[in-house]
Amino acid sequence: MWNCPYSNDYFAKFAEDFENEDASPTFSMLSEAACSHGITIVGGSVPESSDGQLYNTSCVFGPDGKLKAKHRKIHLFDIEIPGDITFKESDFFAAGDKPTIVDTDVGRIGIGICHDIRFPELAALYRAKGARIICYPGAFNISTGELLWEVMQRARAADNQLFVASCSPSRDSSGSYAIWGHSTLVGPSGEIIATSGHEETVVVAEIDYSKIELQRKGLPLDKQKRADIYLS
Amino acid sequence: MWNCPYSNDYFAKFAEDFENEDASPTFSMLSEAACSHGITIVGGSVPESSDGQLYNTSCVFGPDGKLKAKHRKIHLFDIEIPGDITFKESDFFAAGDKPTIVDTDVGRIGIGICHDIRFPELAALYRAKGARIICYPGAFNISTGELLWEVMQRARAADNQLFVASCSPSRDSSGSYAIWGHSTLVGPSGEIIATSGHEETVVVAEIDYSKIELQRKGLPLDKQKRADIYLS
Repeated sequence: MWNCPYSNDYFAKFAEDFENEDASPTFSMLSEAACSHGITIVGGSVPESSDGQLYNTSCVFGPDGKLKAKHRKIHLFDIEIPGDITFKESDFFAAGDKPTIVDTDVGRIGIGICHDIRFPELAALYRAKGARIICYPGAFNISTGELLWEVMQRARAADNQLFVASCSPSRDSSGSYAIWGHSTLVGPSGEIIATSGHEETVVVAEIDYSKIELQRKGLPLDKQKRADIYLS
Repeated sequence: MWNCPYSNDYFAKFAEDFENEDASPTFSMLSEAACSHGITIVGGSVPESSDGQLYNTSCVFGPDGKLKAKHRKIHLFDIEIPGDITFKESDFFAAGDKPTIVDTDVGRIGIGICHDIRFPELAALYRAKGARIICYPGAFNISTGELLWEVMQRARAADNQLFVASCSPSRDSSGSYAIWGHSTLVGPSGEIIATSGHEETVVVAEIDYSKIELQRKGLPLDKQKRADIYLS
């Protein structure tokens, strides 16, 4: 949610109906940036307004500026830990109802948003469908972020032997929701390739897909699985 | 594998046939310790000899000294990463063929051995069957250990909102297999409650099961799952 503060007070106000490009400045800007630079962009997530519902949605654009895929957050973040954090995303958002796999100029990518990363089943599905990277735009809060943001990314990467890339808004210390930040790239052994703090920054890193084959050949987790046992 | 060096040269020599208690000093010692102290023991793992096969096996004893359950390592550790590590456990061990859940005086426990922790499906199965703790005796090596031993434990605990307890042999710097060590207890939020280094030590920690209900009530991951989507 990088085009507005992460707060219920702002989601509807900053929401865009992507079908109406004249009223979708974020959507248009991402499309133009992808086209003018000739690159693929996984455009974080923004509030989407569609058919009277709000969604937490990530758009993927190709080098021609066209929308290639749109992921609506599947797992909404409803939490109530007394004394720590209470947040109920499902009060104002509807949930997406399908996984998102997209073939791009830079390989097959699976998309998840924030809380979607907490579900190993989604990452395993993306692996099964041939994703080479899973991109998780996300705005973990400070408490869960410090505890689990990195652990989740590394576990999803290591368990599925693929790359995981995350991108978080930076921290707005005056906002009501304190964001952890720490955009990160993790390799297929679960190793951190690049990461950041909670300030605004740009991270540039190279992804070497041959690492995936090397890992999977050396340690064939997929072949070592015991499907005969897991259902018992 | 705490009763012998972790090396193919020693597994057969130190293997015990638990059916023959006179020739099973490790088995007998654990049974007597559990009985004389009136405690439950998850006894790490030792090489088991049975019907002409070797297994990597963990025995659980009750306060009466009786064997309550026996887990044979399901996922054998076969790895070949040039320049780093080559090891093929399946050359000398047979694999177990079932998960192990045991009801003890201290709650329902799921057992996994070492490489078993790499498979989220086994942990999810234990969660589904009501385990409150998953115990993973394991001897990760230095390279995989530094990278993933803690991440795996924390991810299994956080994903399933239960406790994970691991116990590793300490490092024998003269051995052929350099063990990472770091026995650890992780709580149901993925938080480390207690841990250790790679030297011999004793770790004492309390497990408060009410943390499980607190976590699952506040953040009901199980109810938030989207089984309708994962199979698509």
